[in-house]
Amino acid sequence: MPRALTQNPDYEGAIRESFARQTLMSTMGVRIARIAPGEVDLEMPHSPAFCQQNGYLHAGATASLADSANGYAAFTLARAGTDVLAVEFKINLLAPAKSERYLARGRALRSGRTLTVCLAEVFGIDRAKETMIATMLSTIIVRETRTR
Amino acid sequence: MPRALTQNPDYEGAIRESFARQTLMSTMGVRIARIAPGEVDLEMPHSPAFCQQNGYLHAGATASLADSANGYAAFTLARAGTDVLAVEFKINLLAPAKSERYLARGRALRSGRTLTVCLAEVFGIDRAKETMIATMLSTIIVRETRTR
Amino acid sequence: MPRALTQNPDYEGAIRESFARQTLMSTMGVRIARIAPGEVDLEMPHSPAFCQQNGYLHAGATASLADSANGYAAFTLARAGTDVLAVEFKINLLAPAKSERYLARGRALRSGRTLTVCLAEVFGIDRAKETMIATMLSTIIVRETRTR
Amino acid sequence: MPRALTQNPDYEGAIRESFARQTLMSTMGVRIARIAPGEVDLEMPHSPAFCQQNGYLHAGATASLADSANGYAAFTLARAGTDVLAVEFKINLLAPAKSERYLARGRALRSGRTLTVCLAEVFGIDRAKETMIATMLSTIIVRETRTR
Repeated sequence: MPRALTQNPDYEGAIRESFARQTLMSTMGVRIARIAPGEVDLEMPHSPAFCQQNGYLHAGATASLADSANGYAAFTLARAGTDVLAVEFKINLLAPAKSERYLARGRALRSGRTLTVCLAEVFGIDRAKETMIATMLSTIIVRETRTR
Repeated sequence: MPRALTQNPDYEGAIRESFARQTLMSTMGVRIARIAPGEVDLEMPHSPAFCQQNGYLHAGATASLADSANGYAAFTLARAGTDVLAVEFKINLLAPAKSERYLARGRALRSGRTLTVCLAEVFGIDRAKETMIATMLSTIIVRETRTR
Repeated sequence: MPRALTQNPDYEGAIRESFARQTLMSTMGVRIARIAPGEVDLEMPHSPAFCQQNGYLHAGATASLADSANGYAAFTLARAGTDVLAVEFKINLLAPAKSERYLARGRALRSGRTLTVCLAEVFGIDRAKETMIATMLSTIIVRETRTR
Repeated sequence: MPRALTQNPDYEGAIRESFARQTLMSTMGVRIARIAPGEVDLEMPHSPAFCQQNGYLHAGATASLADSANGYAAFTLARAGTDVLAVEFKINLLAPAKSERYLARGRALRSGRTLTVCLAEVFGIDRAKETMIATMLSTIIVRETRTR
């Protein structure tokens, strides 16, 4: 995207507040590594509690990390007083996930009035190397926040 | 699919053994509700530990449930001595997920020598009603089990 | 879907009028086989002009057929004065496509105010048999028609 | 991808020979704009024969262009004597397509022994500007060529 324009001066505060309410993120030990217009990176350590049958990170856990990264990348570009919700996503698992930690880089490709499309790359990170383990293409809807 | 033919006489045992090793499933409280040729249903209770910012089940948790249902639906049709791995999946989130429990029905649409395509429907279940909350289309690869 | 409710009394006329303007459909020889609330079937003959390198129908041609079937299935449920546009779709190619003709059955799974989710199954049809060759999961947006 | 390694010294010839057999490509007026290891660009002019109801390029035509670009990007990395086939793809339509011509850039993200994952970006190109109109994530299978 040539340049991502934010519409909410406090997009960073809005993301941190929303992220703190995502219990799945704290359950999985995910933390925010970076926030910029149209870009959010999330990071988590490997944990034996979220694996599939061979001890690799479960595809659903990888998807959870990438889905939140893409959702918040979309959120950086949303108006104040709105919320974002995943409409759908598609993930390709590119390599077995058994690294020390994982980093998902969510990027907005196109931000519209109603829908934002994001692409995430997920990397497995070890002392010596970095491997791309997944890529996710997501459609996210922006909605007015309902009064809670 | 006109008729799903199993190739492993003990496909049910193979699934239960593999499922028991998926730590994400026990972490989320998922249990096997049904196993039949080409079909696996998985069920989980709602839990506040796997939610997004508004208290709904996180899309990644819904995806985890559907991904395992589809993977094991593919596994019912695989030869003995093989393992299944998700190549990719795409999920549409159809309604907010805040039910008492969730049921994912994984079904094999087409089972080939190398790849199996499955479709899952995920329902939110409450005393009075059942709502379809998501649908997932998955590609699964069947591989020889490596000696561990 | 328990029951698909139409909001446009003349949904069939609206579809036939729009379909007649889709030049790709006439180029490929597609005709409407069936229209019902939430359901549209489109049919086309095999043609050597739309193939891939081995003489099978090109995946893009199969996708074109399924995309229009899903779009019009969504359109049966849209308000009068609106138009539908594909936001995204995902297709799995299940078997080589080299039949006498092809039938795509588009079905609305969930119809909302802004977005409709549809699932299409595409069959290759020969005198003696019918083969499912593809399945497509689509997200469609409903918009007010702009004055042209 | 850090570096895409070709395994077929004449990958370019293999692509040109296969592309010449894809009748859909000649029907739509597509030509090869660029071939490099892991990368294929395809280009086509706008044509009134492949449109949807508002005169934009039909999503299925955009998908056809991107699917072939991704397939041949995968083919640059395949062994001699093999063929490539799309297993599945997912496309997001980002902007209406009504440009003078269209360019699809297919790129291999991960190339395995059996499966290759590719990402394509499709641009609408006019004298004054270039717009990203779609992005496609594809899974492609590499198979031994059957004797014809």
